[in-house]
Formats: sequence, structure tokens, C-alpha cells
Amino acid sequence: MENLGLCTDLYELTMAQSYLEHGKTDKAVFSLFVRDLPEERNFLVSCGLETLLEALERFRFGDSDLKYLKSLGRFKDFFLDFLREYEFRGNLYAIPEGRIVFQKEPLVQIEGSLPEVQILETLVINIVHFQTVVASKAARIYLVSDGKVLVDFGFRRAHGLEAGIYAARACYLAGFAGTSNLEAGRRFGIPVFGTVAHSYIMVFPEEEEAFKAFAESFPKNAVFLLDTYDTVEAARKTVKLAKEGVPVIGVRLDSGDIESLSREVRRILDEAGLKDVKIIVSGGVDEYRIKTWISKGLPIDAFGVGTKFITSADAPYLDMAYKLVEYAGEPKVKTSPGKATFPYKRQVFRFYSGDLMDHDEVVRYGEPNGGVPLVREILRNGTLTEKLPSLEEIRETFMEDLRRIPERLRGLEKGTYEVIIK
Amino acid sequence: MENLGLCTDLYELTMAQSYLEHGKTDKAVFSLFVRDLPEERNFLVSCGLETLLEALERFRFGDSDLKYLKSLGRFKDFFLDFLREYEFRGNLYAIPEGRIVFQKEPLVQIEGSLPEVQILETLVINIVHFQTVVASKAARIYLVSDGKVLVDFGFRRAHGLEAGIYAARACYLAGFAGTSNLEAGRRFGIPVFGTVAHSYIMVFPEEEEAFKAFAESFPKNAVFLLDTYDTVEAARKTVKLAKEGVPVIGVRLDSGDIESLSREVRRILDEAGLKDVKIIVSGGVDEYRIKTWISKGLPIDAFGVGTKFITSADAPYLDMAYKLVEYAGEPKVKTSPGKATFPYKRQVFRFYSGDLMDHDEVVRYGEPNGGVPLVREILRNGTLTEKLPSLEEIRETFMEDLRRIPERLRGLEKGTYEVIIK
Repeated sequence: MENLGLCTDLYELTMAQSYLEHGKTDKAVFSLFVRDLPEERNFLVSCGLETLLEALERFRFGDSDLKYLKSLGRFKDFFLDFLREYEFRGNLYAIPEGRIVFQKEPLVQIEGSLPEVQILETLVINIVHFQTVVASKAARIYLVSDGKVLVDFGFRRAHGLEAGIYAARACYLAGFAGTSNLEAGRRFGIPVFGTVAHSYIMVFPEEEEAFKAFAESFPKNAVFLLDTYDTVEAARKTVKLAKEGVPVIGVRLDSGDIESLSREVRRILDEAGLKDVKIIVSGGVDEYRIKTWISKGLPIDAFGVGTKFITSADAPYLDMAYKLVEYAGEPKVKTSPGKATFPYKRQVFRFYSGDLMDHDEVVRYGEPNGGVPLVREILRNGTLTEKLPSLEEIRETFMEDLRRIPERLRGLEKGTYEVIIK
Repeated sequence: MENLGLCTDLYELTMAQSYLEHGKTDKAVFSLFVRDLPEERNFLVSCGLETLLEALERFRFGDSDLKYLKSLGRFKDFFLDFLREYEFRGNLYAIPEGRIVFQKEPLVQIEGSLPEVQILETLVINIVHFQTVVASKAARIYLVSDGKVLVDFGFRRAHGLEAGIYAARACYLAGFAGTSNLEAGRRFGIPVFGTVAHSYIMVFPEEEEAFKAFAESFPKNAVFLLDTYDTVEAARKTVKLAKEGVPVIGVRLDSGDIESLSREVRRILDEAGLKDVKIIVSGGVDEYRIKTWISKGLPIDAFGVGTKFITSADAPYLDMAYKLVEYAGEPKVKTSPGKATFPYKRQVFRFYSGDLMDHDEVVRYGEPNGGVPLVREILRNGTLTEKLPSLEEIRETFMEDLRRIPERLRGLEKGTYEVIIK
């Protein structure tokens, strides 16, 4: 898929053709925002802008795309010619990646001729929605993890390969130490982690032999998976091997009663003087379990976080919309119940109380205000206004914002933050 | 991304290198299955095999992949050479797409040398898991829809573009009439649907003018979106325009109290003699709402189903695993609590009672049994044994299976089906 022009919904193109037929080609502004946060989220982490900008470059219509559209029998030749020439030359305003954001704040605003910006709707929502969903889930997990190492093990249960790759980026941006996902490691320069699965243990006649073989192959990365047969017994075998000089840096528990097993395994390792051997826990890990385990003081050093993170299982979607807010200089609002929108291109100003965030104000773009502005101009006439930040810089931005959120937003209980629409 | 070799977890490759170093290269069989169904699913729909076979062809390691792997400092040259030459030449057995399947049934089984089949784990789970998740969700929606038209409107809230495209295929396979997703329409030949968004209505000074303009542009597909301002008022405008000769084939309600609005709109249309104008409902639609609306006899002709379908919001993942079941002719089992596996390559036999499915038996592959076998040999030595079915044929397979599931599995309440492991 070289061109992404068909990565849209049919109605975007029917609307665009009709706009052109009726002279509706004045300047329009669309705003991407989340109406309300899910019950399970106290804040969101802005994510997906870099991918969106790459996708905008590829949002073009090639011969095979146009041939398909013609075959639908709905589109006129003048419109297919319009699509053939299409490339986004408008303006794009966004809250940078890694910022902590809230309900009703414009994450992305796109300005250009009405047909030009209308047909981007599906692409813009698809990319920013998903990445914001997973970055926000990752941040929630990071907040309760108390400095323990977090690694993304979710690739296999992501909703497709692409989802797995971008989720790995999103969680790294939001505090994870790295991922098991090699493609994400290569593409984004994220640290990669991983040792063995149960199948490895099972192909050796004896578990001990498997541990030994793995340590031979990877003496610097020898982490033994303990729960294939009997976890406690496997911990004892680890001790025996270590005494024989076999290198071991960690053990992994992937099932069973983590509370009793982690304590027992730690005790066995410590009694043998293996205090530096780390305990890694995986298998159904989420922020609720991590919080419980940490509150009980379990001796766990790192978590492999998979399925529940990568599908954002407790809140797999956001109520995110891309709405027309201005056309031909006039404000535009939708008034249907529960879905009301606010007109005009907007800036978000953040106000602090001491070091901590106090509230945000969303005002018409260009109006003066006393807070710290979050929205930046990213594209002017289709061209980047400044170099995008690196992933490491985005991670720093996130860490900085995270330090400044009020206490009531830091836990797993619902906390709210005031966003004033002016 | 030409080659997919890096679409895997690091540990698949560390294991493979160690297998090769320790002579663990005998024939292995891995089995992909779902341990238990989610509470919200009475059955699953097998989906993803075609995509998996395409991905297997592309599961190769090119120069840039190998360069990245070398940079990690863990892999030896002999192993990088092994990856450079890698292409899957083993055997693959699967339950074809569109079949209704249950817990513990081997959806895909892969046979080959141990390193060759180990490193496919992440890819196989990722592709089959997601597509089975969404096909199963779609089937559940289809079952309660009572013959109404269902259209996928979910592309924007899918977890990435790829997820949206494959979800569109999965729901068509499971009874939907089509999708709004143009890329899926083109790629898979699925019917595409769509009209206008609220933004279209909002750029015209008067709602009535917008309706008229759209009907001029698309006289054969004129569906008016009624809920931008006042739904009932918009229905009256539709009647007025129809009396003036403006073509209209349907109206769409995307928000508000669907029960009262659909009845009121139907009444207004009927009183004007517009009995053929269809009512389409979208916005937060899922199987629970459809069931309630149908049980109340609401006059709705078609549903646009989006977010809750495409994220499978009530069950966004399955407890799916790819486990070693046989190595060097020996049975392999994992005995950890709650995660026990069953050894050997297996066949699933289905038993019917009259026309309806009665139970399934999972037996060792090759053993005789009285039921109807579900597992087929798909690849032998890396080559297709028979032509794959078309999407229309797969849809027929699904429809045929769906007619034969017992009554207790057809509703939204939990119903179970017996799968006997022999």
C-alpha cells in the first residue's frame, strides 16, 4: 500500500465531490478532540502526530485507487482528477506528542479548503485515536509501577502488526523501558527485551538442561523461565546451577499465585546468596495487579505487560471526533444532545498552581491569555514549521508533564481536571 | 515493510539460535488454540488464515533486518546466515476461515523443524487472534440483527489502519452487508456504503439546502443525515423536499433517543407516503442495543456499526496461545496450573444431532473417528495443497455453520458447547 488515499470512508469522498459541485471550497477548520474521558482514565497522553504526518505525505491517489473509485459508478471525472492531484497543502496545529491532555482539548486542528481537509477525517482519527489510547493506558501502568522496569510483551495480542508496532512506540514514550517487538526496536530505536518461552524448556529432557543450554547460548542475558512444570522446584534448580558456575541474571514467573511464588522464589535465591538475580513477572499483568503487588511489597523487579495493555482492555476506545469548527470565517457548531461542539480554531492554555497543573483554558486561537500554550503550528501550507522532536525528547516531555499532574489524577481511582471552554 | 521477519518477539530468535546451537532441530508441531472463550462469546468464527499465508510468504530477513539484529550484539553469524536463508517450508494444518469453532480447538497447527516453526509464533498469533476476535464479534451482532442490513462504520476507531481493513473483511465474512472502508472495498471486493457526515450539513446556510445539494450530487444514493440540529424537524424537511421531487432513498439517525426518534421519523415519512425511504441508525450501536430495538419492533432498516464492533469492546482479546505439542515424535505438555496443554497434532471432529451441532471431539491427527473433520492440510512443504476459498465462499461456509448451531448459542446470554479432548 504505497498510497493511503483509500484509507478513508466512502462518505468523505461523496461529501468532497458534492462540496466541489456546490462551490463549498472556502477555508475550513476541523478539530480532533475527545468529548469525555473514559471512567478508567484521569488523563490522556497525546500520541500519534509523527505517524499522522508521515501518513499525510502518503495520502495520495494513484492509478489503481482511481480505477477502483471509478468502478463504483458514483464519482465524476472532474472529481477523480481532483483526487489525482490531491496533496495536503494546508495548515496543521497540534498539541505535541507526550503532553498530558484532557477532555475537549483540540489534539489536532487542520485548516485548508473544505474538501481538502474533509477527506482526511478517517485517517486522522484512526492514527491519533489508537496511539493516544495505548499511550494513555501505558502512562496509567507506569504511574503505579513505582520505578519497576516495565516491558511491552503485547505484540502477539495487538490488533494487527501495525497496532503492535505503534503500541510499542507509545508505551516507550510513556515510561516503559522497552519492548519485545523487534520491528518496533529497529524502527524507533527502542530497547528490546526477551529470553525464552515454555516451548524452549519443553524440548529438553530435563528443565535443568534447558536452563544450562540457554545460559551457554546467552551468558549475559540468562533469564530462566520457572513455571513450565513446578516453579519452586525450578528456583531450586536455578540455585544449584548458579553454584556450579552457570550464569543467571534473572528468573521469570508467567503463571500461578504470584504473591506466594515471588516470595518463595526470592527467599530461595537470597538464601543461596543470589541477591542480584532479578524476578520478572508476566502473564495477565495490568495496573491493578501491579498496584496490589507493590502495595504488598512483593519482591518483583520487572513486569512484562502484554494483552491488557496493548488492547487497552478496560477502555479500548475513546469518544474522539474530528469536527468542523469553522467554515469561510464563520463559527460552526453541532447542537445535537450530548454531542455539542465548540466553534473556531483554538488554543489550550495551561495554568499551574505552584509546580502542579491547576486547570486548562481552551480559547479562540490568537486571543491573549495568561497560561502556557499547548497547541503549536506544525504544518504551514503542508510544510513542517520546525523539526519534530525525537522519541527520547517526547519521552522527556511526558516525564516532565507527569511530574506536574495533581495527586488526585495519579491513582487508579477516578479524579477529574478542570478544562474551561471560553 | 517488505520483509516481515522482524515482526516477532526477540525471544523467538534467542530461542532459535540456542536450538541450533544445541542440535534441537527435529520436527516440532505447534498448535494455535483458545484456552477458554470469554464470558461474552458462545462461539468463535475462524478468521485470518488467508492473511497469515500471505504473511508467511513475506516472513523473510533482508539485509537491513540482519544489520539491525547484528547491532543487538546477541546473535552469532551462523544464526544470521540461517535467518538470511529462512523461508517457511513446513506443513500447516488449519480449520478453514468462516467455520464456527470453540475452546481448545486447534485453529492452526504448524509442523517443521523446531527453529523454523518457533520463530513464527508472534506472527501467527497476532494475525489469527485479531481477525478471529472481530469476526466473532461481528457474528454475534449478525445473529441478533434479524435480517437487517449491517454496515461496518468502524474504520476510524480501529487500532490502526491495518486493523480497520482486516476487520472490514472479517465482518463481511460474518454476515455484514459491507463497509464504509474504501481500502477494504478495493482489496477484498466488499460492497461499500456511505453518504454524509454532520460537517456536510453544517457548511450550508440551511439544512434543507444541504439535503438538496447532496441529492443533486448523488440522486441514486440520497440518504439524509437528520440529527445535526433537530431530528424531527429534519424529517419534515425531508418530506417537503420529496414532495418537490428531490430524490431520497433513506435517512440516518446518529444520536438522540433512537426509540422515540425512529418511531416519529417513520410516522412522518409514512404519512407523506414515503414508505420506501429507509431508516438507518448509527452511533454507539452494538448487539445489545440492536436486540433491544428489534424486540421493541422499532422501524429501523439498517445499522451502521462502528467502535464497539471494531475494537470488540466487550472482549477485545482472546486467551489464545501457540504451544509446542510435539517434538521429535514425542508428546509435549505444559503442566502449569490453568495453562495445561494437550499433546500431538490433532483433528477436530464435529458431531451433529439432526441438523444441529451436538459436540466436537479433538483427537490425535490420523486416528479414525465418526464425526465430520474440520482441520485441513493447507500447506505441505511450504506449498498450498489446494486453492483457497474466495471471500464469498467463506461467507457461505459461515452461513452454513451458523444455521447449524444449537439454540442456546444463538443469543447474548452465555451458552456452552461440549468439546471433548481425547
